[in-house]
Amino acid sequence: MSIDPDRISRNKNALRENSLDAFICRLPENVVFLSGWWPLTGTSWIIFTADGYSHLIVPACEAQEATAEGITELTTYEWAHLAAKDPVGETKIALKVAAEKFGIEKGQIGIEEIFEGVAPPLNIGEPSIPGKWSKQLIQQILPQAKISDATEVINGLRVLKTPTEIEKLRIANEIASVGLDTFKKNAMQGISEIELLALINSAIAVKGSGYKGIKSARGFAQISSGKGTAMAWRPCVITTNRKLQNGDITILELAVVADGFWADNTRSVVVGGPDKWQKKIYEVILKAQSAAKDAIKPGVKMSIVDKAARDIINKNGYGKYFIHITGHGVGWRYHEFPPLLNPGNVTPMQEGMVTSVEPGIYIPDFGGFRVEDNVAVSKSGFDELSTFNRDLA
Amino acid sequence: MSIDPDRISRNKNALRENSLDAFICRLPENVVFLSGWWPLTGTSWIIFTADGYSHLIVPACEAQEATAEGITELTTYEWAHLAAKDPVGETKIALKVAAEKFGIEKGQIGIEEIFEGVAPPLNIGEPSIPGKWSKQLIQQILPQAKISDATEVINGLRVLKTPTEIEKLRIANEIASVGLDTFKKNAMQGISEIELLALINSAIAVKGSGYKGIKSARGFAQISSGKGTAMAWRPCVITTNRKLQNGDITILELAVVADGFWADNTRSVVVGGPDKWQKKIYEVILKAQSAAKDAIKPGVKMSIVDKAARDIINKNGYGKYFIHITGHGVGWRYHEFPPLLNPGNVTPMQEGMVTSVEPGIYIPDFGGFRVEDNVAVSKSGFDELSTFNRDLA
Repeated sequence: MSIDPDRISRNKNALRENSLDAFICRLPENVVFLSGWWPLTGTSWIIFTADGYSHLIVPACEAQEATAEGITELTTYEWAHLAAKDPVGETKIALKVAAEKFGIEKGQIGIEEIFEGVAPPLNIGEPSIPGKWSKQLIQQILPQAKISDATEVINGLRVLKTPTEIEKLRIANEIASVGLDTFKKNAMQGISEIELLALINSAIAVKGSGYKGIKSARGFAQISSGKGTAMAWRPCVITTNRKLQNGDITILELAVVADGFWADNTRSVVVGGPDKWQKKIYEVILKAQSAAKDAIKPGVKMSIVDKAARDIINKNGYGKYFIHITGHGVGWRYHEFPPLLNPGNVTPMQEGMVTSVEPGIYIPDFGGFRVEDNVAVSKSGFDELSTFNRDLA
Repeated sequence: MSIDPDRISRNKNALRENSLDAFICRLPENVVFLSGWWPLTGTSWIIFTADGYSHLIVPACEAQEATAEGITELTTYEWAHLAAKDPVGETKIALKVAAEKFGIEKGQIGIEEIFEGVAPPLNIGEPSIPGKWSKQLIQQILPQAKISDATEVINGLRVLKTPTEIEKLRIANEIASVGLDTFKKNAMQGISEIELLALINSAIAVKGSGYKGIKSARGFAQISSGKGTAMAWRPCVITTNRKLQNGDITILELAVVADGFWADNTRSVVVGGPDKWQKKIYEVILKAQSAAKDAIKPGVKMSIVDKAARDIINKNGYGKYFIHITGHGVGWRYHEFPPLLNPGNVTPMQEGMVTSVEPGIYIPDFGGFRVEDNVAVSKSGFDELSTFNRDLA
């Protein structure tokens, strides 16, 4: 398997601590997490045992890509062509054979039942998810096993990234920088929001696919402009064909995936350059972001990191316009929790967490600004995964 | 609601026939199906009753877009900002109030438990899905209701599209044509597969958003080239930075979404123009596609439509290279079933079905060709949703 030994050992220990004999998963993001491989269609299954063994079951038509990733413990089932008479039956057999090989037929099996926000496989237009049917299939092939939901265990494991995983997230951030650069260079009078989105997503796909061994990179840009930026705190905005005009604040919210690892970045610019007020407000945000980052180290409460940013914004009189949290986890999806950098959260930061740091100010009928970067919590502070310039111009 | 009266009446009748009092759904594709509105983040809920009433529950930050679609029966819950202290609690209250308004607290409720392939909301990088938690939430707010899986009922209803829905799918196909055109004009020596993908997806986003009232259009292109086209029958391929060369067969597989309605198209070209053999094989495919389309009318078995295409390919000696089905349904996702145009399927075609028609020939170590279009089954034949040119050059 291409996955790092550190990850294998953490997952193995967690299974033991939770009295589980194996995870059986099929959500694309958990296949990446447990095997290192980003499925093409999301119809792969992974078994990972408390002995640290793992076995991937993939449609035969994806075996070439999976083995190219260094995955050796895999079996296939025929699917998506006429000779594949019984893909479900073949999947069942493959799962059964692997379960018997590992001796987990009477074991405690953890599955993923409560994931409700999910990351897509490479086939982004049609994600595949484990519904009731997947659970029934596991129950049928392992009638003597005890099956329970392990969403919390898996989410818990995903909180702390290994050094190898942090490097993969750094690569996703480097690819995101290509998108941020494209945004800064093209956010000019006359271009439309949707044209800008297209340029950014294109640059990421073209320059990211092949970068440092990444097979597939994709960007998911969202653009707000003018007074619309006052609503840019929302998790999703409609990018329209409104044309940018000089003086417009313009915000890029950008998710990027690189072979299943995610980055989450935001940049703001003012078309044609900022005026005095825009400059002043944005400088408050930059200071707030720096203060939050500087507050990050193992042991510090998440609320303290949030407070570091919030205090600066409050002190400058914009407190009531900073209406969201200061940050959230990023990893095998672009929103993961914890960390959750919000007021009142006394959970301590830990080495290996990766968090967004994203203060914003949104003033109705005026506009908004946000800056967002991802940092890893290091032994004694923080490690910036992206250092792309944060200028307004 | 913006949804057509025909759809409301069909869904109402289906609920009654299945002794259900209401659907409660939250998968983005079923929110589109039941309300006409494509959610931004996928955190909306829809209740649709056997009396034909419907009620949407959306995060307050998406209410502006939902009401702009003509949806009047909606309530909101606060989410995604600091003042939103209890989004889950608010969602529960909103669902409970709506359920009481409709008098379905002791009713039979159909939910969506077995969807395993799903379409994303506008926030394509992070789809939202109903897991075990969603079911528990419904059970908690409606403790006296009888909750059962209605996946089959909903999928059954989605098979036959109303005339209004067919027009929406036609628009998705028209937007797809923009992508097909971009492909044909740019598949030249020297361009890479991934550059081509980026141009196609860009053209769709830019020209599709705003087209005939569509708010958001997105393309999901996949490009295969050279000998790689021999594997282009697969549901997902990795689009690489391989540069096209004269003589290369190049295949575009293209999914397009326009406000929640999908199109599924394929075009093949030969860079610099085809040679004699390429021309010959491709002409067989074109004839096979025409024959399959000509065979389509209400009452005809699906196997007969498949056979019409397959006979022509067999007769020309390429039968063993046409390894997949001739077509599948398209609608609120780009793969829906039925129809499934495959050998042995005796189900009859019905007016209002929308199917892909996509014969292909894939020869190992040589390459492959496919052409794919979407047609609606009309009163006495078929209605082409896309007529974009199918030339090889």
